[in-house]
Amino acid sequence: MGESKLPPLAADAVLKQSVAVPDSFVKVSGVDYSADSAYNARATDLIDSMRNMGFQASSVATACDIINEMDSWRGEHRDSLEEHKRTGEFDSQGFQKATVFMGFTSNLISSGLRDTLRYLVQHKKVSAIVASAGGIEEDLIKVLAPTYMGDFALPGKGLRDQGLNRIGNLLVPNDNYCKFEEWIVPILDRVLEEQQKALEELGAEALNADSPAVWTPSRLIDRLGQEINDESSVLYWAHKNKIPIFCPALTDGSIGDMLFFHTFKASPQRLRLDIVADIRRINSMSMEASRAGMLILGGGLIKHHICNACLMRNGADWAVYINTGQEFDGSDAGARPDEAVSWGKIKAEARSIKVYADVTVVWPLIVAATFAAKRPEQAA
Amino acid sequence: MGESKLPPLAADAVLKQSVAVPDSFVKVSGVDYSADSAYNARATDLIDSMRNMGFQASSVATACDIINEMDSWRGEHRDSLEEHKRTGEFDSQGFQKATVFMGFTSNLISSGLRDTLRYLVQHKKVSAIVASAGGIEEDLIKVLAPTYMGDFALPGKGLRDQGLNRIGNLLVPNDNYCKFEEWIVPILDRVLEEQQKALEELGAEALNADSPAVWTPSRLIDRLGQEINDESSVLYWAHKNKIPIFCPALTDGSIGDMLFFHTFKASPQRLRLDIVADIRRINSMSMEASRAGMLILGGGLIKHHICNACLMRNGADWAVYINTGQEFDGSDAGARPDEAVSWGKIKAEARSIKVYADVTVVWPLIVAATFAAKRPEQAA
Amino acid sequence: MGESKLPPLAADAVLKQSVAVPDSFVKVSGVDYSADSAYNARATDLIDSMRNMGFQASSVATACDIINEMDSWRGEHRDSLEEHKRTGEFDSQGFQKATVFMGFTSNLISSGLRDTLRYLVQHKKVSAIVASAGGIEEDLIKVLAPTYMGDFALPGKGLRDQGLNRIGNLLVPNDNYCKFEEWIVPILDRVLEEQQKALEELGAEALNADSPAVWTPSRLIDRLGQEINDESSVLYWAHKNKIPIFCPALTDGSIGDMLFFHTFKASPQRLRLDIVADIRRINSMSMEASRAGMLILGGGLIKHHICNACLMRNGADWAVYINTGQEFDGSDAGARPDEAVSWGKIKAEARSIKVYADVTVVWPLIVAATFAAKRPEQAA
Amino acid sequence: MGESKLPPLAADAVLKQSVAVPDSFVKVSGVDYSADSAYNARATDLIDSMRNMGFQASSVATACDIINEMDSWRGEHRDSLEEHKRTGEFDSQGFQKATVFMGFTSNLISSGLRDTLRYLVQHKKVSAIVASAGGIEEDLIKVLAPTYMGDFALPGKGLRDQGLNRIGNLLVPNDNYCKFEEWIVPILDRVLEEQQKALEELGAEALNADSPAVWTPSRLIDRLGQEINDESSVLYWAHKNKIPIFCPALTDGSIGDMLFFHTFKASPQRLRLDIVADIRRINSMSMEASRAGMLILGGGLIKHHICNACLMRNGADWAVYINTGQEFDGSDAGARPDEAVSWGKIKAEARSIKVYADVTVVWPLIVAATFAAKRPEQAA
Repeated sequence: MGESKLPPLAADAVLKQSVAVPDSFVKVSGVDYSADSAYNARATDLIDSMRNMGFQASSVATACDIINEMDSWRGEHRDSLEEHKRTGEFDSQGFQKATVFMGFTSNLISSGLRDTLRYLVQHKKVSAIVASAGGIEEDLIKVLAPTYMGDFALPGKGLRDQGLNRIGNLLVPNDNYCKFEEWIVPILDRVLEEQQKALEELGAEALNADSPAVWTPSRLIDRLGQEINDESSVLYWAHKNKIPIFCPALTDGSIGDMLFFHTFKASPQRLRLDIVADIRRINSMSMEASRAGMLILGGGLIKHHICNACLMRNGADWAVYINTGQEFDGSDAGARPDEAVSWGKIKAEARSIKVYADVTVVWPLIVAATFAAKRPEQAA
Repeated sequence: MGESKLPPLAADAVLKQSVAVPDSFVKVSGVDYSADSAYNARATDLIDSMRNMGFQASSVATACDIINEMDSWRGEHRDSLEEHKRTGEFDSQGFQKATVFMGFTSNLISSGLRDTLRYLVQHKKVSAIVASAGGIEEDLIKVLAPTYMGDFALPGKGLRDQGLNRIGNLLVPNDNYCKFEEWIVPILDRVLEEQQKALEELGAEALNADSPAVWTPSRLIDRLGQEINDESSVLYWAHKNKIPIFCPALTDGSIGDMLFFHTFKASPQRLRLDIVADIRRINSMSMEASRAGMLILGGGLIKHHICNACLMRNGADWAVYINTGQEFDGSDAGARPDEAVSWGKIKAEARSIKVYADVTVVWPLIVAATFAAKRPEQAA
Repeated sequence: MGESKLPPLAADAVLKQSVAVPDSFVKVSGVDYSADSAYNARATDLIDSMRNMGFQASSVATACDIINEMDSWRGEHRDSLEEHKRTGEFDSQGFQKATVFMGFTSNLISSGLRDTLRYLVQHKKVSAIVASAGGIEEDLIKVLAPTYMGDFALPGKGLRDQGLNRIGNLLVPNDNYCKFEEWIVPILDRVLEEQQKALEELGAEALNADSPAVWTPSRLIDRLGQEINDESSVLYWAHKNKIPIFCPALTDGSIGDMLFFHTFKASPQRLRLDIVADIRRINSMSMEASRAGMLILGGGLIKHHICNACLMRNGADWAVYINTGQEFDGSDAGARPDEAVSWGKIKAEARSIKVYADVTVVWPLIVAATFAAKRPEQAA
Repeated sequence: MGESKLPPLAADAVLKQSVAVPDSFVKVSGVDYSADSAYNARATDLIDSMRNMGFQASSVATACDIINEMDSWRGEHRDSLEEHKRTGEFDSQGFQKATVFMGFTSNLISSGLRDTLRYLVQHKKVSAIVASAGGIEEDLIKVLAPTYMGDFALPGKGLRDQGLNRIGNLLVPNDNYCKFEEWIVPILDRVLEEQQKALEELGAEALNADSPAVWTPSRLIDRLGQEINDESSVLYWAHKNKIPIFCPALTDGSIGDMLFFHTFKASPQRLRLDIVADIRRINSMSMEASRAGMLILGGGLIKHHICNACLMRNGADWAVYINTGQEFDGSDAGARPDEAVSWGKIKAEARSIKVYADVTVVWPLIVAATFAAKRPEQAA
């Protein structure tokens, strides 16, 4: 250990020279605290300072850049298009705009993010939604009764004894579901009635394309949005703004419990929910879009469903994923956007980013720096 | 810094005395390398040495203990039960056994775990399955053409150019889906024909309970299992052993693509898939079970759907979760079993465990140490 | 499946009544988009809207509340204290304030967060720092040459060929380390000279308490901060503001490479770095503090070291952890604050929170809403 | 929605043809349950069935392949080498073998994995170890008193009241640390005595290279291994087999507490621990190795320290990482082997793998299928 000559092996490895740094390289930087804007910073200033900060700070800023590009993209004017190309979304002045698919998981509606998601639907920032079943029912239930703050560590047995259901660090009193049952049963009765009436009228054509005898998850959700008739609700605004909400597994939650109960009440008649018409509907939106973007908040079904729809157009043009899934287990939830490129679900030349974060931590900031950087009346 | 007297504050805090350790405390221990069984160890020996190892090793061993208890549980003899209580599962000698709900995500069927999942279905180790759409189609497609090993880091653009779809470190040639389309289209034609025939026969009762005019995901999956007719297939054995496979969002994958295409081919007629009947069916299985167990491999829909079904019986009696989800984001995927206790989805007194691991790492070992500790003929 | 009576088991389980919700329960809420402050929101408004949002949004807001409480806590006036109790930190008016230990991992200095960490040190928001070795050298190197934005997916072989070292999505040209070597070697020469001179002078007392012959990591770091003499540097301000930086494993990085090289250059003499004096120093700060707080940014050594120091006072009074570690693997990095309570490292009655997030995503926002809610001159 | 012609856009995207699959492609496969070896499978059979299973199952099998290759690699015979090249490790017959650096975090010694780590040291399967401080003291403490099984959810306050320290789902009574103090203090007294004696003898040369006045972490650890003198101990076998254990931050744990206390007891004399000599020592082992392999169990310091040492030889030849860290936060813990390639810490042509798993879940299986596939006497 007492040698006095440094072996060249180590020196060469440690002090290896690098190539000249290309001019295109961007230096890492952070918040400039000499500027007034660093103090109690505004969302856009925060995002600007995060852009070249590295790690997920940069990914958050990239997500904002993609969203702004997607939101402001405009194509041809409607009048300059051949008639069969007048599909997809147009802005109020008649120019093509992106069709934006937003997916979110149930827990985000349970959280206070519901207000932010509702804001986006109210102001037509998205074109279609894919949600899991809880994302539908919790939006409705919150009109009937609130959800409360809890703690991740509250023991389950004590909560069950008190009828308090835990969702992470939130609590939903079970009475909320009782209220939901009271509210929804009469609606299901009427929906069944409409189904049966149409069935009788249409006979052998009752299951044909566009038959009114066939209820689908998106059709039922639209009806529920109409019935709830409350401005705090995502479903209300989706109904009002004709933004379809897709939920292929609508039975997987409290609505499923109610539909299950209803099978006994209605017997031998039965309300049916067809999922084939909805896959036709969402895929058609994708094909008709002049450009398509994806905002994926969470993982699982809601992520895959939007990606799969975008395969129908040979790939989305913009994609923002935000979730905590990891790719190492081969899950779709954890798959990076580049995996979707291999499937044709995102175009190779599309701008895409995955932000590795709990959605509640970043989405309020991202929305404040993009869709809600200005008040809607000012932005218009 | 040169003081010479240790302040008692630090000494008291560091050298605080502990209570006498109760006799019930179990010492941490590991592999005993003095025993021959430690070398190239068998599954059951590995599990025994992991039981008091701590961290997830202990969780894996607990999962094995729960599975063995659930698998060997026996209740009353059929003949000693009142007629209306003769529901749920019985063993070959007529004793009540647990109804086991197994859920798995699509990627596990894409992986080599398919053989293990098929083994469990073939040997009736489970009573019902909940899968995501890919878990259905990939099982069928693997009969038609293989999936290959790839790498997590293969760039998406090059893969898309070659028509190779990536799933984590696996690759599925896109031709596999073309073969799948050729195989399934004639089946969908026949299924539609059966629907229409029944519709015409039943008229206004066509949508009633148990109407043959109504196809559901589980009914279609059963038909596909019958048609594929191949012993390597999970669906084949599920059909043969009358083990229902539930997949409420069956349209969310390649089958959905095919159903979508079929809406054009069949127009104006249309095949319909009702999800209400399936929620009735799975919930009924839960209510009828004398005891119920959950094996949850992965997260998302498949986890929630089984938990929700078990609410109908006021909670499962055994629960094993294996996935990589974390609770901090309030996701259902990451929720611990104790969250399900608060909802009444797992009984407070049930044995449950969550193993935090990629399923492929632990499930082969767990199965080898439990369900497949002995050859079926020996075990019987 | 066609039964018409809902079994009471299911109805009772699903519609179980809950206890009356106590008045103390807090409703989940989110951003109020009717308020002007929701648009391009300021940091404090964002945090206010996240407080009862649930999941990690709430944890971020709690972290801000804890930081504000810790930062503004004031105890007795110096003059009203017995002499031996005049330890720890005092504000400019002579009142006791909290001793704040901040730990961060190397990568945060590589990222643009360095500016934020420097801001906190410059304005004496923290009392002591624990860093990993890279957190020392990268701060110095950034004065000599910049770090650049890269991409997580850049292949390692090509980068090595070009002499570009990757840190997540950042790139550090290897020339930066060559520049660092040129800068640090003369300093190490002088430090060794001082060691040897003191050794000769002190003889048998050369290793005694407070001997100038003994260099420690914190003493060398302080010297490096003095030498770098650049206002962009964390070490510069730490030196200037007499805020010690502890780094028990200072050899574990490029400085270690340089110290290693120096053993050959200096042979048979050798610079020594003693870690015992530093544990005495950090533990003493903990014992002397009137109140102690922990800001832990990342995991591993820097987390454990601060927690361990706080054991010497029977627990910290405030604790904020921010990292992505999970507890399931029994790692210290992933351990929740409540695990530290069991060890006496955090007081049972302390306010503490763990935020599960990449630090770069949340720390700029948290600092903007707390320490930097006002300009320092305004805040004073 | 009622159109009858499928747009070619969707058909082309979904049914895109793939290139012919090259012969080199390997099919995904799993357990072959027609073979007897599938039942209560042995470790090597399990690993064989996991090799082409995909996801982390494949990574585990790759880890085994790398370990077997590394363990069996043999180079030149000692006698055929020039004298200055007779460095590194040789097998009992005089052939060069790989120098294996194994790193593990403290919690693994707390867990039952200690027996497995001890087995590897006892049978000279590794050449050097890097551990965190807890990995040193917990090994010693376990000779004095056991660690117990606990639960991740035990509340910290109650545990502290009882003096039970929690590590994940393990419990360590605080009395164990009191026993440790009694055991170690006399040893520290003697070590200080030796330091002072050498200091007096050597005078101005007391800090020179190889001076016996200078204690280092690795030297103290070796002495502790000698003193504990118990075959269950990792340190005992490391001492006996002359396998150095490096722990640059040895003060960061209970040993640090004891060294801290000792500064008061010994004042004004003080034991010193130099970390410069240890970086010289580990780097020298790396440079002298004919081939070098890394076994990294966990993250943080122990990972970086081994990687950094391997930079001195321009990269390791084999690398197995096992931990739960993720790369998205730019942490070294989560960095993939390919990031180390960019730094020259792993050779571009080396075989490397990262297994994403809690070490306790996979390491017993991996060891049983590799190092312990045969009893040592049989293997020799």
